[in-house]
Amino acid sequence: MTGMSSSRNLTQLAGNPVGNAVIGQSGGPTAVINQSLIGLIKGLNMRTAVQEVLGMKFGVRGFISDDLIKLGRIDEGYLSNIAATPAAALGSTRDKPDHDYCQKIFQACKRHDIRYFFYIGGNDSSDTLRIVHEMSKENNYELRCVHIPKTIDNDLPQSDHTPGYPSAARFVAQAFIGDDLDNRSLPGIKINIVMGRHAGWLTAASILARRYPGAGPHLIYLPEHNFDLNQFVEDVRTVYQEHGRCVIAVSEGISNEENTPILQAVHANLVKDDHGNVQLSGTGALGDFLAETLKQVYPDARIRADTFGYLQRSFCGVASEVDAAEARSCGFRAAHLALSGKDVASLAIKRISNHPYECDIVPIEITAVAAQTRVMEPEFIQGNHDVSTQFIEYLKPLVGKLPVTGRLF
Amino acid sequence: MTGMSSSRNLTQLAGNPVGNAVIGQSGGPTAVINQSLIGLIKGLNMRTAVQEVLGMKFGVRGFISDDLIKLGRIDEGYLSNIAATPAAALGSTRDKPDHDYCQKIFQACKRHDIRYFFYIGGNDSSDTLRIVHEMSKENNYELRCVHIPKTIDNDLPQSDHTPGYPSAARFVAQAFIGDDLDNRSLPGIKINIVMGRHAGWLTAASILARRYPGAGPHLIYLPEHNFDLNQFVEDVRTVYQEHGRCVIAVSEGISNEENTPILQAVHANLVKDDHGNVQLSGTGALGDFLAETLKQVYPDARIRADTFGYLQRSFCGVASEVDAAEARSCGFRAAHLALSGKDVASLAIKRISNHPYECDIVPIEITAVAAQTRVMEPEFIQGNHDVSTQFIEYLKPLVGKLPVTGRLF
Repeated sequence: MTGMSSSRNLTQLAGNPVGNAVIGQSGGPTAVINQSLIGLIKGLNMRTAVQEVLGMKFGVRGFISDDLIKLGRIDEGYLSNIAATPAAALGSTRDKPDHDYCQKIFQACKRHDIRYFFYIGGNDSSDTLRIVHEMSKENNYELRCVHIPKTIDNDLPQSDHTPGYPSAARFVAQAFIGDDLDNRSLPGIKINIVMGRHAGWLTAASILARRYPGAGPHLIYLPEHNFDLNQFVEDVRTVYQEHGRCVIAVSEGISNEENTPILQAVHANLVKDDHGNVQLSGTGALGDFLAETLKQVYPDARIRADTFGYLQRSFCGVASEVDAAEARSCGFRAAHLALSGKDVASLAIKRISNHPYECDIVPIEITAVAAQTRVMEPEFIQGNHDVSTQFIEYLKPLVGKLPVTGRLF
Repeated sequence: MTGMSSSRNLTQLAGNPVGNAVIGQSGGPTAVINQSLIGLIKGLNMRTAVQEVLGMKFGVRGFISDDLIKLGRIDEGYLSNIAATPAAALGSTRDKPDHDYCQKIFQACKRHDIRYFFYIGGNDSSDTLRIVHEMSKENNYELRCVHIPKTIDNDLPQSDHTPGYPSAARFVAQAFIGDDLDNRSLPGIKINIVMGRHAGWLTAASILARRYPGAGPHLIYLPEHNFDLNQFVEDVRTVYQEHGRCVIAVSEGISNEENTPILQAVHANLVKDDHGNVQLSGTGALGDFLAETLKQVYPDARIRADTFGYLQRSFCGVASEVDAAEARSCGFRAAHLALSGKDVASLAIKRISNHPYECDIVPIEITAVAAQTRVMEPEFIQGNHDVSTQFIEYLKPLVGKLPVTGRLF
């Protein structure tokens, strides 16, 4: 705050309001969500108009009860440690604020002299930011709001991809590389359930394990297509007859013709979250159901199912380098945007070139984020149980170099 | 074979029989089982008495039908790739040969002029080797047999630890480090099911995530203790009240007072393998059952269960360096042992010192391996749901340096 005291009574500096900044993290964490946090802290620390950089503990839930942390003067080395740490270092929340809740958030902004509000999250958090920003306008309270995207699901619109996805995709790829070789050692039918409620992006990342002739995953089931159990049994039969084994990637979100998730159709006791969504993760029921179904048909085959679960977003130590760097840049870029006069915005990643891979981070309308779920484009899908070479080209630079493996036959 | 042709009619070289060597891999693979294979190939390539180095495809099952690969002249660089690859590069088998099956193996040895027989596996494979060696003695056929231990379960006797365990332990540790932080971000009750039928070694490795005050796993349930469901519910209550969250490590093998696995007690449809063991892995049923039980008691808590499954042994890219080096040495050492006049043996790792960590690989009686399952020693266990500091001291050097993480509160 040194040197700032003389300008304490300023309300503007170079066109920017003088006041505090607050940062929150929201929704399911990722392996690189703290990269965005640290990039943002570093970006804000350079700005004279920003007095204190505050962190919300557990997102807006902590904010409205004044549960804040000072983030402006953390040791550089320790910031690097936090950046490399998976899961939300500030704590996260699943709260989806309604109008009254947003009023409380706006009141907290005024109470803490917040002029810069950053929320790192998915589409729910962008909507919270939009509503709070509208309230600030109605009240003639200058509040710059920037949303920083994150989701392992990669389902935010207008972006080439979303920070968090490449690292989760890398986990899935490394998991399938090993699991395919394990299945090759002890042949059988192996089902792996991958996260992704409405979009198959993460399940599709299993394709990177298909690195030699005959390699799995041999079948990839995405929520973008209706799932037909009889067809599934037949698909497995074809592969099993050809290869004597079958590795299968299945999205947790696969649904039947009526758009009912298969898991919901087979599991009576599912929990619903505050958004009314059925809980698909954190249970092995879908994998077990598919394995049981196949056991009826192939009683002599070795059939197993694994559900990768929360490790996909939280596993410590396999983040994608590209993802880490981009998530960091998003944070830094958000600080720049807020202090360049932009009232309210979100960010998107645009791919400039693929060979060599190059991307840019650009502002987009905040309303664009919450508008829709981005499912996989048709050109990325091939038939009913595979992805296209275009998708592989799209994914490879994001995930980075995967471990080298060798085979003896 | 150059230079060998002139000695073709020799039957002994420096006291060693002249003939071929065969290598097999058996049982569930590990992340470093190919390190042992490559160490062994390199060791055998140096020996003049060894003519061809052959690999059994899919263990003894391939061997008895003459399904062999020549391993003696693979490019050095490619050998390194294979060494770093998880899962059995030769293919594996779950066959547990009886007397007749062993006769077929012995016939295959004679048919292929095998004088050196190496089997990389757990206790079943050591027993196969013992029986085949006895047959060779009865038939006055000189056959050197060396068993190379591997198992992620760490349950072989007479060894400080078993190759394969440290890498699986590292996977479990990295998984719990991330999962604990994820649970800290979005507090709730999280159950993670870890492999280990009779011994808790792998489940116990979760302790390495407990790196700060309040860190999980808060409860660790090992098969070495009877599991009491009511006590479990109470244990969780205590932790949840103190920390507002609870991360739990549960061995898939936890059993009730009658020594019936809990999974078996709650899941009617379990598959049995050829050894009569109930299949515990490859299903999410135990985690789901425990989660359902807790949901009845804590209807408002966020409760999830993950079953780590086969990723624990197959995940590509997180092998322990110590494990890789030791597994490699075991292979190399086995070659040396067989060509030093030893008739039949297995290997064990002895720890010489802990600070700094140092170990030696020594021959042991082949009969010692199959004799019993090594459960965790009492001094490694603390109370009914924790491990001791001695265990942490034991484990740390095996797993190696884990990723650095940071926290903001």
